[in-house]
Amino acid sequence: MQSDTICALATPTGGAIGIVRISGEQTLDILSKIFSKELREAKPNTIHHGYIKTASGETIDEVLVSIFRSPHSYTGEDSAEISCHGSRYILNNVLELLVANGCRMANPGEYTQRAYLNGKLDLSQAEAVADLIASTNKATHQMAMGQLRGHFSSELSLLREQLLRLTSLLELELDFSEHEDIEFADRTELSTLAQTIDTRITTLSHSFETGQAIKQGIPVAIVGKTNAGKSTLLNCLIHDERAIVSDIHGTTRDTIEDFIDINGVTFRLIDTAGLRQTTDAIEQIGIQRTHAAIEKSRIILWLVDAEPTDEEIKNIAERSNDKSLIIALTKSDLSTHHNELLTILHKHPTLQSTPIIPISAKTGHNIKQLEQTIYNAANLPTLTETDVIVNNARHYHSLLTAHENIQLVIEGLNNNLSGDLIAEDLRIVLSDLANITGDGQITPKETLNNIFSLFCVGK
Amino acid sequence: MQSDTICALATPTGGAIGIVRISGEQTLDILSKIFSKELREAKPNTIHHGYIKTASGETIDEVLVSIFRSPHSYTGEDSAEISCHGSRYILNNVLELLVANGCRMANPGEYTQRAYLNGKLDLSQAEAVADLIASTNKATHQMAMGQLRGHFSSELSLLREQLLRLTSLLELELDFSEHEDIEFADRTELSTLAQTIDTRITTLSHSFETGQAIKQGIPVAIVGKTNAGKSTLLNCLIHDERAIVSDIHGTTRDTIEDFIDINGVTFRLIDTAGLRQTTDAIEQIGIQRTHAAIEKSRIILWLVDAEPTDEEIKNIAERSNDKSLIIALTKSDLSTHHNELLTILHKHPTLQSTPIIPISAKTGHNIKQLEQTIYNAANLPTLTETDVIVNNARHYHSLLTAHENIQLVIEGLNNNLSGDLIAEDLRIVLSDLANITGDGQITPKETLNNIFSLFCVGK
Repeated sequence: MQSDTICALATPTGGAIGIVRISGEQTLDILSKIFSKELREAKPNTIHHGYIKTASGETIDEVLVSIFRSPHSYTGEDSAEISCHGSRYILNNVLELLVANGCRMANPGEYTQRAYLNGKLDLSQAEAVADLIASTNKATHQMAMGQLRGHFSSELSLLREQLLRLTSLLELELDFSEHEDIEFADRTELSTLAQTIDTRITTLSHSFETGQAIKQGIPVAIVGKTNAGKSTLLNCLIHDERAIVSDIHGTTRDTIEDFIDINGVTFRLIDTAGLRQTTDAIEQIGIQRTHAAIEKSRIILWLVDAEPTDEEIKNIAERSNDKSLIIALTKSDLSTHHNELLTILHKHPTLQSTPIIPISAKTGHNIKQLEQTIYNAANLPTLTETDVIVNNARHYHSLLTAHENIQLVIEGLNNNLSGDLIAEDLRIVLSDLANITGDGQITPKETLNNIFSLFCVGK
Repeated sequence: MQSDTICALATPTGGAIGIVRISGEQTLDILSKIFSKELREAKPNTIHHGYIKTASGETIDEVLVSIFRSPHSYTGEDSAEISCHGSRYILNNVLELLVANGCRMANPGEYTQRAYLNGKLDLSQAEAVADLIASTNKATHQMAMGQLRGHFSSELSLLREQLLRLTSLLELELDFSEHEDIEFADRTELSTLAQTIDTRITTLSHSFETGQAIKQGIPVAIVGKTNAGKSTLLNCLIHDERAIVSDIHGTTRDTIEDFIDINGVTFRLIDTAGLRQTTDAIEQIGIQRTHAAIEKSRIILWLVDAEPTDEEIKNIAERSNDKSLIIALTKSDLSTHHNELLTILHKHPTLQSTPIIPISAKTGHNIKQLEQTIYNAANLPTLTETDVIVNNARHYHSLLTAHENIQLVIEGLNNNLSGDLIAEDLRIVLSDLANITGDGQITPKETLNNIFSLFCVGK
């Protein structure tokens, strides 16, 4: 089916080295036509030094060619990598020469797609390849690496085994019922097993929120009255002059987002318009956006530089209901009444367990402690390489569907539904989970295209 | 001497693949500490699949490691390339891990510098590596490739042979004069040989002008009266809206440069302020720059849309004295008197051999023909891969010095100077040429630093 031999640039141009990848049946034939050495009999995993030459004998480059032989290659096909000098002119010429000799330019993700189609990776592992390339910190890297190394796939195959065991128990029950004409057996064991499966599926699907937060940055809304020092703190945390700072009340009207890395996890800081009564129409829009930002955030960082009113405290406490609230007493370099303020706030019934930290963005006082408090507030599970955290919307939706269908199984068992009907629901659960890894290559072509079109060319 | 083991990223981040290079004695030791397989006994030119892991067992990446063994590697040392997923996070971690295990981050060009110091390349070939990576079209690529493949080095070693032959002939003469007490022998043969050597040296040094022009783009000044359509033509040639176009006279005040590729050669088009009498001070500066641009150019493209005065023709003819002049009759889509104008201009005594082409930048009329005329006007030698064109200022200055010193040799021979004095001058010529290839590694450290600091890191 994959009869084309494909080629693509696998590195950006502009470096010392540029890598051209080739994969497909004709790889060694085509290479032998443009390389100064015969490569058709080249041994797998060997490197060959020589020259890329045009039909008229012009030297395009002095290169190293790495040879991989089917099935022991990334794609599972015969393939090769040409390591060229990193000039755009050279790399374009090598690609043109390959195309002139029978290669086709690869589509985005086509190498990984072939690896999947040839059974080298399952679909969730293939998706992890793109995540791994896009990973920017320890947390996203660990999630992608764990998924690529098949930890998620193992979890799923464990679930699959349990589902198959449930199916055979059900079949056994059917056999009994047919042959011995007795009542339905005791279904407690079956129901317990189904519950166990559902619990695991639910745990996985619940990890999606954390996975998404890690992937996109955990949202932290920075709120507070106008001129409480929000923009100054943001600039301090991101070590940059991202937000416009001024002493004028209401300087920040848009919500401004930026990213910081705390202990290998990305936090998305959302600077918001100061909360105050205003008649300025544009500023009012800003305040509405602030409320929306609070809504979407996981952590609220409330900056306080003077005693808030009860109403203000009530307002914040309500909005941070299902979120982690942190209070930072700003301008600790200027203020002399921080201890006083601390005592007053801590006495407030809704704030008794809220972390309250005096900080100064100007002198850097307690900024490290604030960062650690933000990290703790995210309440992330201790991530290790083998932890499975779902971070892909496609996987999440399959897990949700699997959960709904296993619920039908449980109901069926509890309501003494006939075994063959329950078995049918079990088959659907199996297929929901199979969608994630793409088992049996039954995944629709459109799904595959959607997945691989998001890859970069050359991977 | 090169006891450090160095590492660097050899590709930009942001692609599917990122390559980390390692070179030095400790390469395989260090790699074995961070790779999932033992590599100390790995065979040369082999590829190994496995995982890069931290000391605590965390997986950084699934990679391919290519092994090269001394002396059959780029640097001549044991070396390796790690092919990683192209994430900046991963690549930084791999580099950090290498440094933690004993590697040092490489300086720009350090791999090529080691290749030179280990005798894998001479200095002119090492310099060609940087040129090759920077090459953007056929001409610059051919020059660099020829130099890398040693065509210039061969020329120089031929000259060296001839100089050594001259030296031995001179010694023979000295022997005769000492032992047999006769007059100096007939020096015609010696003088002819010295002349031949000088001719070749001069030819090489003359090629520098062409080499520079090819490397930096052959300068073409586009001149003409205000509103003659210079900026429009420039935009047409570069297929872009680089220059601000308007109908207002004197729109272009700065000289604007851009690059076009004609038949694989880069031309640097210099749009100039229109030549007219003006009292506008800024525009006058522009006109002065125009004159400077004409001075530096190799080709003058004069745009004419109405009959020029005799004074204008005389002015241009004077300025284009040692350059190639091309006249383009612009706006051929609007003008009806082009034939008339053509006849008038061709009749002018100084313009009889000047190519005159009616063009329209608007309709594209004769633009291809104009490009070909520009290419022909550059009067480039037909370049083949084996042609030697000097394009490096360092080489050029060595050739100029060699020329001066061989002139002393010739004078000495003609003035019957004593053989040992002439032999001294010959040694200087030999050393001038040896500077180019860095023979005997006598090249000063500063020169080497200057050369390799211009390289990118990772090469």
